[in-house]
Amino acid sequence: MNQTIKTMLNHRSIRKFSGEKLTSDQKEMILKSAMQASTSSHVMAYTIIGVTDDHLKSDLRAVSGHPHVENNGHLFVFCADLQRNYQVTAADKEESVKQNIESTEQFIVATIDATLAAQNASIAAESMGLGICYIGSLRNDIKRVDELLELPEYVIPLFGLAVGHPDHKPEIKPRLPLEAIYHENKYDDDKYKQGQLVKEFDRYLKTYYQSRSTNKKISTWTEQMENKYKVPTRMDVTPFVKSKKLNLH
Amino acid sequence: MNQTIKTMLNHRSIRKFSGEKLTSDQKEMILKSAMQASTSSHVMAYTIIGVTDDHLKSDLRAVSGHPHVENNGHLFVFCADLQRNYQVTAADKEESVKQNIESTEQFIVATIDATLAAQNASIAAESMGLGICYIGSLRNDIKRVDELLELPEYVIPLFGLAVGHPDHKPEIKPRLPLEAIYHENKYDDDKYKQGQLVKEFDRYLKTYYQSRSTNKKISTWTEQMENKYKVPTRMDVTPFVKSKKLNLH
Repeated sequence: MNQTIKTMLNHRSIRKFSGEKLTSDQKEMILKSAMQASTSSHVMAYTIIGVTDDHLKSDLRAVSGHPHVENNGHLFVFCADLQRNYQVTAADKEESVKQNIESTEQFIVATIDATLAAQNASIAAESMGLGICYIGSLRNDIKRVDELLELPEYVIPLFGLAVGHPDHKPEIKPRLPLEAIYHENKYDDDKYKQGQLVKEFDRYLKTYYQSRSTNKKISTWTEQMENKYKVPTRMDVTPFVKSKKLNLH
Repeated sequence: MNQTIKTMLNHRSIRKFSGEKLTSDQKEMILKSAMQASTSSHVMAYTIIGVTDDHLKSDLRAVSGHPHVENNGHLFVFCADLQRNYQVTAADKEESVKQNIESTEQFIVATIDATLAAQNASIAAESMGLGICYIGSLRNDIKRVDELLELPEYVIPLFGLAVGHPDHKPEIKPRLPLEAIYHENKYDDDKYKQGQLVKEFDRYLKTYYQSRSTNKKISTWTEQMENKYKVPTRMDVTPFVKSKKLNLH
């Protein structure tokens, strides 16, 4: 197994960082790696915002609720961005450009582009011995984040990425078994209807939670998913995205 | 610069593969790397379908139009999948579960989860000397792909990933300058309004296209984007996604 794969298999989210900031070189290496990720038809429909302002970091922490949004080596926010492409092309055939850019298809493209870049950024950081944590909780109040970062139309914040020097070493979190995620040639719905794979994973995860070094708890994957979905959450994301004229028609 | 970062900076999409198939070990390493990527709140809202059936590959090639969808070492299709989580949780509070799973928020989550996994798969493959190409063109007829892979409700195909032994070595494709993609603390719209960064990139890309070893052409990024958006494309993705009850409200 090569070092790159070892790095990926060794991934665990880091939620406690030392006070040390990333160097310019580290940031540059992370950003260059991010930008070399694949992009759909060369559209590069994303923007990365680095947050260095302490007040802004504190405001973003308040949205997220997580201290590591404020305390880290560097915070990136990844945005789906079709504004750049709109500005480049709108002079010619504006109505058609709008129809494309405001479609679900282009919303998918921009979300994928931003995420491909973010995962390269994460792997680059981890390959240098840094830790990372994705911050989906910026979508707890996506409108507020949008205002804080002064995003124009056709741009939305998707998630943050906190990077820094790890100050703890949590266990690697188990994943569903490979056969639950990977199918061949067609979707095999029976895997879930029988429920066996999930039941086994529930038992396995329960043991993991009880045996890990910190934050021990008694829970299964099923219970966590039930808790997650039992109350409608972040329903304001839908009108927000449409207000930015993405995913509109 | 470490080997992992070298691998990422060395990325170019491979569209011509030798006939050699991936070994089981290679596939397993790619899938394990994919599955260890970050996932939003442990939802793992994606499924990977490996395509080994020759007829199916040929049908998918017909949708895409690209020979490398058929001729490769292995073809993966990455799907956003909230069906698994629905089945696990629906017995309890079904209406609330539906509201969540059918929301734009969860559609974003599943798209991101699938893409994080896919990019780990890509890096794993490239770290082993294999080449990759994302196949967004499966969305040329997303409904047909959905039918071919027999995807249930709450599951949609996002893109393919062709992997194999490279049989050509295209030049690395240039990216927009870092300062166009990376902003600090707020979105700096002036970067695009002035248009300078894009103009410089246009000049640079024109030189690149004329100097590269194959598929020489005279084109700029601006022209490519204009061509891309001048006709509304894949507008059927919107109703398709809704027909699968994702991104519904």
